[in-house]
Amino acid sequence: MFNGIDLDKLKEECGIIGIYAPGIENISQLAYFGLHALQHRGQESAGIAANKSGEIHYYKEMGLVQEVFSDKVIERLQGDIAIGHVRYSTTGESYVTNAQPLVVHHKGGAIALAHNGNLVNAGEIREKLEDDGVIFQTSIDSEVIANMIARNHKMEIEEAIKNTLKELRGSYALVITCKDKLIGVRDPQGLRPLCLGRIDGGYVLASESCAFHVIGAEFIRDVSHGEMIIIENNKIKSIKYDKDSKKSLCSFEFVYFARPDSTIDGQSVYVARRNAGKILAKEHPVDADLVIAVPDSGTVAAIGYAQASKIPFGEGLIKNRYVGRTFIQPDQRMRERSVKLKLNVLKENIKGKRLVMVDDSIVRGTTSKQIVDMLKQAGAKEVHVRVCSPPVKYSCYFGIDTPTRKNLVGAVYSVEEIREMIGADSLGYLSIEGLVKSINMEGCSLCTACFSGDYPIEVPKQGSNYLFEKR
Amino acid sequence: MFNGIDLDKLKEECGIIGIYAPGIENISQLAYFGLHALQHRGQESAGIAANKSGEIHYYKEMGLVQEVFSDKVIERLQGDIAIGHVRYSTTGESYVTNAQPLVVHHKGGAIALAHNGNLVNAGEIREKLEDDGVIFQTSIDSEVIANMIARNHKMEIEEAIKNTLKELRGSYALVITCKDKLIGVRDPQGLRPLCLGRIDGGYVLASESCAFHVIGAEFIRDVSHGEMIIIENNKIKSIKYDKDSKKSLCSFEFVYFARPDSTIDGQSVYVARRNAGKILAKEHPVDADLVIAVPDSGTVAAIGYAQASKIPFGEGLIKNRYVGRTFIQPDQRMRERSVKLKLNVLKENIKGKRLVMVDDSIVRGTTSKQIVDMLKQAGAKEVHVRVCSPPVKYSCYFGIDTPTRKNLVGAVYSVEEIREMIGADSLGYLSIEGLVKSINMEGCSLCTACFSGDYPIEVPKQGSNYLFEKR
Amino acid sequence: MFNGIDLDKLKEECGIIGIYAPGIENISQLAYFGLHALQHRGQESAGIAANKSGEIHYYKEMGLVQEVFSDKVIERLQGDIAIGHVRYSTTGESYVTNAQPLVVHHKGGAIALAHNGNLVNAGEIREKLEDDGVIFQTSIDSEVIANMIARNHKMEIEEAIKNTLKELRGSYALVITCKDKLIGVRDPQGLRPLCLGRIDGGYVLASESCAFHVIGAEFIRDVSHGEMIIIENNKIKSIKYDKDSKKSLCSFEFVYFARPDSTIDGQSVYVARRNAGKILAKEHPVDADLVIAVPDSGTVAAIGYAQASKIPFGEGLIKNRYVGRTFIQPDQRMRERSVKLKLNVLKENIKGKRLVMVDDSIVRGTTSKQIVDMLKQAGAKEVHVRVCSPPVKYSCYFGIDTPTRKNLVGAVYSVEEIREMIGADSLGYLSIEGLVKSINMEGCSLCTACFSGDYPIEVPKQGSNYLFEKR
Amino acid sequence: MFNGIDLDKLKEECGIIGIYAPGIENISQLAYFGLHALQHRGQESAGIAANKSGEIHYYKEMGLVQEVFSDKVIERLQGDIAIGHVRYSTTGESYVTNAQPLVVHHKGGAIALAHNGNLVNAGEIREKLEDDGVIFQTSIDSEVIANMIARNHKMEIEEAIKNTLKELRGSYALVITCKDKLIGVRDPQGLRPLCLGRIDGGYVLASESCAFHVIGAEFIRDVSHGEMIIIENNKIKSIKYDKDSKKSLCSFEFVYFARPDSTIDGQSVYVARRNAGKILAKEHPVDADLVIAVPDSGTVAAIGYAQASKIPFGEGLIKNRYVGRTFIQPDQRMRERSVKLKLNVLKENIKGKRLVMVDDSIVRGTTSKQIVDMLKQAGAKEVHVRVCSPPVKYSCYFGIDTPTRKNLVGAVYSVEEIREMIGADSLGYLSIEGLVKSINMEGCSLCTACFSGDYPIEVPKQGSNYLFEKR
Repeated sequence: MFNGIDLDKLKEECGIIGIYAPGIENISQLAYFGLHALQHRGQESAGIAANKSGEIHYYKEMGLVQEVFSDKVIERLQGDIAIGHVRYSTTGESYVTNAQPLVVHHKGGAIALAHNGNLVNAGEIREKLEDDGVIFQTSIDSEVIANMIARNHKMEIEEAIKNTLKELRGSYALVITCKDKLIGVRDPQGLRPLCLGRIDGGYVLASESCAFHVIGAEFIRDVSHGEMIIIENNKIKSIKYDKDSKKSLCSFEFVYFARPDSTIDGQSVYVARRNAGKILAKEHPVDADLVIAVPDSGTVAAIGYAQASKIPFGEGLIKNRYVGRTFIQPDQRMRERSVKLKLNVLKENIKGKRLVMVDDSIVRGTTSKQIVDMLKQAGAKEVHVRVCSPPVKYSCYFGIDTPTRKNLVGAVYSVEEIREMIGADSLGYLSIEGLVKSINMEGCSLCTACFSGDYPIEVPKQGSNYLFEKR
Repeated sequence: MFNGIDLDKLKEECGIIGIYAPGIENISQLAYFGLHALQHRGQESAGIAANKSGEIHYYKEMGLVQEVFSDKVIERLQGDIAIGHVRYSTTGESYVTNAQPLVVHHKGGAIALAHNGNLVNAGEIREKLEDDGVIFQTSIDSEVIANMIARNHKMEIEEAIKNTLKELRGSYALVITCKDKLIGVRDPQGLRPLCLGRIDGGYVLASESCAFHVIGAEFIRDVSHGEMIIIENNKIKSIKYDKDSKKSLCSFEFVYFARPDSTIDGQSVYVARRNAGKILAKEHPVDADLVIAVPDSGTVAAIGYAQASKIPFGEGLIKNRYVGRTFIQPDQRMRERSVKLKLNVLKENIKGKRLVMVDDSIVRGTTSKQIVDMLKQAGAKEVHVRVCSPPVKYSCYFGIDTPTRKNLVGAVYSVEEIREMIGADSLGYLSIEGLVKSINMEGCSLCTACFSGDYPIEVPKQGSNYLFEKR
Repeated sequence: MFNGIDLDKLKEECGIIGIYAPGIENISQLAYFGLHALQHRGQESAGIAANKSGEIHYYKEMGLVQEVFSDKVIERLQGDIAIGHVRYSTTGESYVTNAQPLVVHHKGGAIALAHNGNLVNAGEIREKLEDDGVIFQTSIDSEVIANMIARNHKMEIEEAIKNTLKELRGSYALVITCKDKLIGVRDPQGLRPLCLGRIDGGYVLASESCAFHVIGAEFIRDVSHGEMIIIENNKIKSIKYDKDSKKSLCSFEFVYFARPDSTIDGQSVYVARRNAGKILAKEHPVDADLVIAVPDSGTVAAIGYAQASKIPFGEGLIKNRYVGRTFIQPDQRMRERSVKLKLNVLKENIKGKRLVMVDDSIVRGTTSKQIVDMLKQAGAKEVHVRVCSPPVKYSCYFGIDTPTRKNLVGAVYSVEEIREMIGADSLGYLSIEGLVKSINMEGCSLCTACFSGDYPIEVPKQGSNYLFEKR
Repeated sequence: MFNGIDLDKLKEECGIIGIYAPGIENISQLAYFGLHALQHRGQESAGIAANKSGEIHYYKEMGLVQEVFSDKVIERLQGDIAIGHVRYSTTGESYVTNAQPLVVHHKGGAIALAHNGNLVNAGEIREKLEDDGVIFQTSIDSEVIANMIARNHKMEIEEAIKNTLKELRGSYALVITCKDKLIGVRDPQGLRPLCLGRIDGGYVLASESCAFHVIGAEFIRDVSHGEMIIIENNKIKSIKYDKDSKKSLCSFEFVYFARPDSTIDGQSVYVARRNAGKILAKEHPVDADLVIAVPDSGTVAAIGYAQASKIPFGEGLIKNRYVGRTFIQPDQRMRERSVKLKLNVLKENIKGKRLVMVDDSIVRGTTSKQIVDMLKQAGAKEVHVRVCSPPVKYSCYFGIDTPTRKNLVGAVYSVEEIREMIGADSLGYLSIEGLVKSINMEGCSLCTACFSGDYPIEVPKQGSNYLFEKR
């Protein structure tokens, strides 16, 4: 709670970037600024690996991108190819150990990998590898992948990777560099996003297109599901290594994870969010005086709701822009009002009014209650909570950190019970159909498993998505 | 540019807080969270001094509140009274030296002061004191004030302060603690804000009311111009030490400095900003498709503009929430697109549209040009820039860091020239009357000197507002 | 105990250096390396102030010289004159506040001071100054001195200093820089050392001559008691501002403080220590097999004892060279054997032997007991403790940190009682006469007050030597 | 030069410790203090791994033991078994990556290893493992060993280790913990030392016995060459896994690496060094007035030389005790006199005298020249350099960082040429026979390969001992 910028949200696990730009002067500075634009995808650790003619130097550390890197470090990371990674939390103690990119030496030379996603069968594969005498120094999937690639070292690296991918089940957007190549891979379901851009004479791969803007790269296209991109000799080669799987992009990227200025698989995140607000207004209309957002993630949908409902949009909650890591352990007194560190009510704007309060999602529900309380104490006559996504009911196995089901308020209680718990006058969630419609992706089914339990690939019946962490 | 959260803005110099709460368990933790809410008023240094029966312990350091303090430090700062300070930049090298609160020993014991504002005649007084053999270890006004108080040590502390205030000319909101007292003072013109609240059994003084919310304090009233508040024995005593001066609150507090959820001298900052947007729409109407804001400071006014003009409000620029201090010196390539580190265009939303782009103020103008360029490149058909304050033409002598006049675009160029420079299709500034009307403060004249040159008190004809820095 | 390199010793308060070398490229680097050689005189804070045409930049921080300064900091400190300071501990919380050099602005411009010593009447003067309305921001004597100089700002700086010195009582070696001058002063009794050297075209002043060696300076002479040296226009002017006082150099400089490779007032510290060992052998002979030292401070005297007694010298105790600040709080188990972190016994060398164990001084006696125990447990047949200084019985008022008298084992117990407490087979202290003889300074009386109570100037009857610390 | 405490010396690569003490309260604090006593064996990184019922937590970082660990870290490292490691430099960038202990997961659970020494055939084994698809994340031998153990995971851990050891060639003292066991191994030649002690109810393994003293452990015996010690269920089991190899302890441990208060394989390091000095006096007598040492490492031998030659011992060079890491890059002027930062001459003691200057070894020779110069400039009439070891002529492949042969002055020049280069009046090295005799180890041949080129096991004909660093 005292660590991030947003409250009671699911957390993306990672953001990745890969830059191929031989001859460019400071490739790691580009990677740095690109990662900075992806910071919202992971705030716990950051790392960059630079590949100079096959020799790979790297640096990774706990902290925000701007905390981890200094001019001195960036200068050391010279090369023609660079990959970078930001990571959201893991449990486990040896944090830096689990930071990425992972850089290893194998028969075919040095290789660096950065991974966004989660392998459903990593534990299984790892067990088999351990049976063969393999040791593991981290608890990240990248180490499993690196081992599998190394076992195929007699093949060309593309072949080795392709061979490896056949064994993987789960979500992965990967950037890999080895020798003079930059390789990008997106899983067969396209669960995690990955897109391709052009920069000067070279190319960029990134989790989200917002990373291109800041470094002056131009968007080319999204990498497709089941596609491997090999960049070498300044050329791009595309291999469709899986032709059978059906696409199933994570719908939560549109709900909360991605930055609104990104475009994923052809759809603007901003537009999808505004659509969601509009549809929500249709699904759960209410007679009210003002639409307000829980900032920042609810703002776009709130504007959409206002437009569709013709109820005016206004600001009711102000966010402290300086919230970040704090080193002070708040005492009981402060903890109870923790949400106040981040949000304050605009009394003048809401006093005596019937409010529609738009939030993007409700995970545990604790924060919602505090906010509704704050609004009522400040004089709001009614507070109608509208949520731009369906109730989160199921664990994600594809790279999102979901609480255990018993802590998912949507999994345990009915909508009416939740309404009562949070003290709202009414509560409406966007329907799954509404969400899918808002994203409006023709010919592409979306993964809505966290809402529906309908997983696009088989997942473990029981147990956790963090298989290695607690060994 | 790579340091703050906002671009091309005037900078407030300080925020202050004072808490009197004998018996409360952790007074410095309250001061900490209060300062945190005032962080927008100064990001360069932070300090807290805690007074325990006249003995004063303190800690101050360069950095944000959350960077400066740790649990260990806060625990050391025990007491019944605490004062705190956040400060925006000074030039000069020995930065920490100039951090506040200033804690000194004088005949009457230890005394701690925190000051927001700028004394116009500090140099004059300082010179006289130096003639008398006084030494100075800092370049801050607080040291001048402390010396003057000490010279009156034979009087009661209130008298000593009153006597001192008579000599001061300029702006000051002060919190002072000595012995068992907490004292708050606001200058005769009330140039800088200061308000009073109640917490548990005690009292709080703060630059802005938003600091009360987070610590659970209740707003009582604003301290008036020319008023001194003495809190002692759990009671409040008010002395109107100056009855003649006319109030002249800084209007820029409403334009940019203060947090929208604060209320200053009876007026909500949010409401004033929305008003400004509405009036601006009347003063500079335009035929357009969408009103967008330069986030975050332009957002409220943009909503007002949209409401008054009936042109829909939408988001056109997305801000990277993680922008803060960066340790990477961007190369030429990155510097040219520095604004991109903070802002990205929402192409989908603005493509082909005629935009009204609302900003709170223009200081140097460099950023405005970059933003207009970005919008046009992204496909905006027209960009009509509307500024919620008049052109900044004059230096502030009352605590705001204004560039030299030759760098104030409003002082050097006509509106039409500026429009051409920033590449806008039209440019409209709020009039001074419009600004005053938006703040709507009955019976109170506002200081609009930075726009009009009409200073509420006599200021030095030439020279800088930083008199000691470069000695 | 877990902080320094030596155990159970009195602590010097400071070391100072001043360099005048217009045109030299990197004067602060010279000051840095000079301070490094004076590190043994103070390990708590370090600071350097550089004077460039009257403008003074400085940096000071808690820590060892090598911890405090970086290339970046040193580069910023450009100038023609530099002064530096290392300081040993004070109590009081705001540590950095009390670090030196003290840099202030007064009517005559910027002035920097560094002080080694202690003013007996600082409290008195301070009180008078406070009566006049002066404020104090630190608890160091330098601030008192700076205020007094400032009050005489109408005179030339030399005159102002001379006038100030007339009021001071106590010990002081001072280096001061202001405008284009470097000034060095030694108190009328010459209690604290100060010497003068030549470097390239300029001059150096330092607490000890060992600082000259490392920077390639050449020793010229000691500054005399009651002498002020003004260096200006590349010339030296000497003023004997006190002609009446009798010299009384601190004898403990020879016992422990000064580095053995320094020469003070014409006497080699090494030679004096060896003499002390020789005289000790005459005063307290004993039939034994081996002379060992408590390293490092007892080594020279042990060699002298061995030479005079014809008992062979050998090593019996080995010191861990890496002992420094430790961040681990040892538990009870470790605390009891704390001395073991620093010293280990060379069993092979001492087993079955009758030992003479030479130490330079005993303050609290706790460590001596632990060492004697260790030696006996390792098989020493007898341990005869010989101390190269008389019992420390009185507090120092001249710049040495002495424990309160009740903690001075020599003040409370008889020699025989101490012998029993530390478990030695015999115990012999050097006599005061022996000490004076060992230093062998013709025509100069030494201060032996901590042994004899015979203070060279009047001291406060009661109370502490730290007058301001606890206000 | 600006990094360590000693000058121009060969560097040991590591020190290790292992503690088995179920039920003891703070096992990692013991490991901490033990490592602190082994600090002289490696100053670049430090690490501790604590094993609690098979679960292993660890912490390792660049820096001295006292810099790396804090109370907070030590508290986290709870367990019944702990191993620790200090490491001297490697080249290569990702320093922390190469710190030890190495902690990995294999089929048999978590396993932690700490290694002192160097495997001659690590490259060969590694290549074979890479052929099998193994990846490497570090360039340390421990990772090779861990992989080999993991491949034998179907055996009991002792068997797996035994099987692994069969493949290793080179030097290794190893401590390993896995499940509820602490295992110590010494290589078949016993090149690197390892000894066993008892602590409370448990056991300790350490590179040197000096680590026992500080934690209150009692020396039991040295681990023999080719012996594996398994500690489990509070019992010790010994396996002689190699019965054929001849012992060949590194003689340089006695010359320089080990602390004088350690005992290795039955011989006191102090006694061996004194013997060396005595023999040196016989081998290279000279008519002189004073024997001085290059402190600290030459001191013991100098005392021995003095005793045998009847020339008095005295101090001629004083060492600055505060030399450590410095962050200041000295300019040309300072670099030329870099040795002066560490050593100063005691003029009074050596003026006009014919000196015997005893040093433990000469590697590059640059420092010796500076010291001889300093002594002559200070007035020494003659300087006769005596070195307590033979000329270093050959690279070490067993864990010592030797410069390339062209930088070994002893490999390139004759004794007479070296004498001339360093400006000594005479130069005498201890003979190999003299060295062996001084160590006086019955029935044990010593490794003197760096002097004689006579390697106890086959070494690579060409190439470096750092096989992986530069891949």
